Amino acid sequence: MVQVILLSGGSGKRLWPLSNGARSKQFLPFLSCPTGGRESMLQRVIRQIKESDMKCDITVAANDQQRDMLINQLGDGINVVLEPSRRHTFPAIVLSCADLLLNKGCSKDNVVVVLPCDPYTDAGYFEAIKQMAQAVESNVADLLYMGIKPTEPSDKFGYIFTDGELSDNVLNVTNFTEKPSVKESVEFIAKGAYWNSGVFAFRLGYIIDIVEQKYVHVNNFAELRSRYSELPNISFDYEIAERAQSAAMVPFDGQWQDVGTWNILSSIMPDRTIGNVHFGSQCRNTHIINELSVPIYCDGMTDAIIAAGPDGILVSAKATSDTVKQHVDQLVDRPMYEERRWGTYRVLDRTSGADGMHSLTKNLFLKPGHNISYQLHHHRQEVWTFVDGIGRLRLDDEERIVRAGDVIHIQREQKHGLKAITPLTFIEVQIGTDLVEEDIVRLEMNW
Amino acid sequence: MVQVILLSGGSGKRLWPLSNGARSKQFLPFLSCPTGGRESMLQRVIRQIKESDMKCDITVAANDQQRDMLINQLGDGINVVLEPSRRHTFPAIVLSCADLLLNKGCSKDNVVVVLPCDPYTDAGYFEAIKQMAQAVESNVADLLYMGIKPTEPSDKFGYIFTDGELSDNVLNVTNFTEKPSVKESVEFIAKGAYWNSGVFAFRLGYIIDIVEQKYVHVNNFAELRSRYSELPNISFDYEIAERAQSAAMVPFDGQWQDVGTWNILSSIMPDRTIGNVHFGSQCRNTHIINELSVPIYCDGMTDAIIAAGPDGILVSAKATSDTVKQHVDQLVDRPMYEERRWGTYRVLDRTSGADGMHSLTKNLFLKPGHNISYQLHHHRQEVWTFVDGIGRLRLDDEERIVRAGDVIHIQREQKHGLKAITPLTFIEVQIGTDLVEEDIVRLEMNW
Repeated sequence: MVQVILLSGGSGKRLWPLSNGARSKQFLPFLSCPTGGRESMLQRVIRQIKESDMKCDITVAANDQQRDMLINQLGDGINVVLEPSRRHTFPAIVLSCADLLLNKGCSKDNVVVVLPCDPYTDAGYFEAIKQMAQAVESNVADLLYMGIKPTEPSDKFGYIFTDGELSDNVLNVTNFTEKPSVKESVEFIAKGAYWNSGVFAFRLGYIIDIVEQKYVHVNNFAELRSRYSELPNISFDYEIAERAQSAAMVPFDGQWQDVGTWNILSSIMPDRTIGNVHFGSQCRNTHIINELSVPIYCDGMTDAIIAAGPDGILVSAKATSDTVKQHVDQLVDRPMYEERRWGTYRVLDRTSGADGMHSLTKNLFLKPGHNISYQLHHHRQEVWTFVDGIGRLRLDDEERIVRAGDVIHIQREQKHGLKAITPLTFIEVQIGTDLVEEDIVRLEMNW
Repeated sequence: MVQVILLSGGSGKRLWPLSNGARSKQFLPFLSCPTGGRESMLQRVIRQIKESDMKCDITVAANDQQRDMLINQLGDGINVVLEPSRRHTFPAIVLSCADLLLNKGCSKDNVVVVLPCDPYTDAGYFEAIKQMAQAVESNVADLLYMGIKPTEPSDKFGYIFTDGELSDNVLNVTNFTEKPSVKESVEFIAKGAYWNSGVFAFRLGYIIDIVEQKYVHVNNFAELRSRYSELPNISFDYEIAERAQSAAMVPFDGQWQDVGTWNILSSIMPDRTIGNVHFGSQCRNTHIINELSVPIYCDGMTDAIIAAGPDGILVSAKATSDTVKQHVDQLVDRPMYEERRWGTYRVLDRTSGADGMHSLTKNLFLKPGHNISYQLHHHRQEVWTFVDGIGRLRLDDEERIVRAGDVIHIQREQKHGLKAITPLTFIEVQIGTDLVEEDIVRLEMNW
């Protein structure tokens, strides 16, 4: 059974304001789904793997902030390996490989395929992946790359050089060069080099042996995870791909787009708009995604992209949409919307009083059967006004039923928890001197 | 003493989303003020009248929805005449004239100047107004127009034809034609016609006599107001200006712009942006007004206007910014922000429950010393969470002090009122079957 490791990294700064630390670009639900409705990049790639009939298990390598999004989009049945801290692809892949070896009963002989989840591809891509896995299985080489036929000079990719076929559609790799200058890339392309797609295949033991020789023993997963920061913070390309002695490549020249900017994302959106949008008659090739409830009216725009959500509003020519990345640090304050395992919250309002007191008002939605943890706060009181649904409230170890119209005033240090019986919506007003998500003491309790 | 009647009409649909029924375009505080800060069109025109040293009293003719905005922007010292219902300029001017005659002790000999408050003009405009008033005073003609030298063929204006000077800079009017076709307007301009500015001067008796002859007696203001709907719903231009037998015109060719579209408003804004806005490096001649708290990022735009507020978001080429007018009825649901005499409110959130129950969450701000009326609701309960300031709450005829952290749960039919001692902010959650501003029973009480 092939082990597929999906890399769910990336902060998605280029897709501000709709992506943020927790909701990376691969979670944005803007693609059309063959069964109707919309799906995210992550959901799409997993659907495509299943449709390819590759015999495989899937592991998603992600960071802690993404955990709730992953469970929401993929359900509980998927194997998720969470990095203890955000690091580059090499340590992330090592951690997933260790999980396969130490927790999932895989052997060093098992074939592993690593793939990023952000390229937008067609079925041929997964055929190439099956060929890569087959080539590792047949011992054609230690490390298999997928090479993309370049369409333009670019300094954004590593380049792979080959010199002949080792087996059917598997080329011998002579050299791998990380991102060159655009000028150099022209030369590389003239010599027939391929772009590195970031898809790799190898036997589990290949990586485990390198880690053991160079860094740490891989015999205890918890220990490896606790020593995660000792692994070099480096990309898999630099640490492994550039140094491979025995490498081969399967070329792929079908659809392959990095859906990392609004420009490219809009090009694969099935509709011009999502959300409450009204066009005048003089707009051309303009895409609008509106996650706010208020309307957007747009006229006289050509080749533009507009994206509006609780975190902010982007208005850009498609050609300049990636410049937002350089400004995101100034734009981002705190997330104004998050999807959690239990449901969602949206920040509605913030005030600052003359006396150093602040308020933060949220709309919270709990999915039926889900709960927010039993907890207390040191620095704030909270007022919950229930506006829809039925739930079980626990307040200082006493339980009661709450429904629309009920108001609960939770004082500082007062223990409180809530579980939804039916879909449950309430308005929370926090009042205190220091209103941060971190002011939370989680307490043990079983619902 | 000249009596100036300022017409504060207009719904300002072309300036959606920042203007609405209550906050018409003349209230938008986007112009620079010589003393620093920003002022509205209305504040600007009143400042300019005062600077012109015209000896005059000012009356503002407005509709009921605008009353609180007027008091906020102008204070209590200004004479305001409120129409009982929204009608055209002729009935509105008649009502103000009747107020001057019957309530303010003016005589039929008093000179009246009527002017709209939306043109953006320079000091010369007010010199022309003084000449108009002087010409009426000197009995040069019954009705004085201000004529604007046309700058382009246009079907948006009435045209005034003249044939010679009656006195210094006062021309004899031979003909007045309401809005022609653009083709006709070319001919009119070739013949030396002027645009009608909408500024008129006449003696109070001139209008009163016409009304008495044709429509109703003007001897009791309350009665006239109650019979307001009997006056024809027609513009002053059609009813009076087109039919005047003795008319003259003072020409004006200084700055004169109808600030009725985002395109023109942006051209007189002192800065490119208002509010939380970040530009990339590739924007040209793009203006952004952001009344939301979240940031707008903009790049790659040329000659564009972006306006964002609680009611919605407009993104348009400047040239097409007035097309929004045709779409406003689809875009407007309920006002999401209003300035009232007592302060402001902003709608933060709305939910609809499965059981026909709805919720509406607001942030309300009361100015110190101001109160919201003692009232009750038939169809909703309200939860007030105080987040800043100190106030006096009256609940079922009992009074108490409220401050940050206090929570008040007001049941259906429960009498409640609130007065701010210091600037007071609270979050209101309404829950009920029918959440409309109209569900309010106002009760007598003195604070």
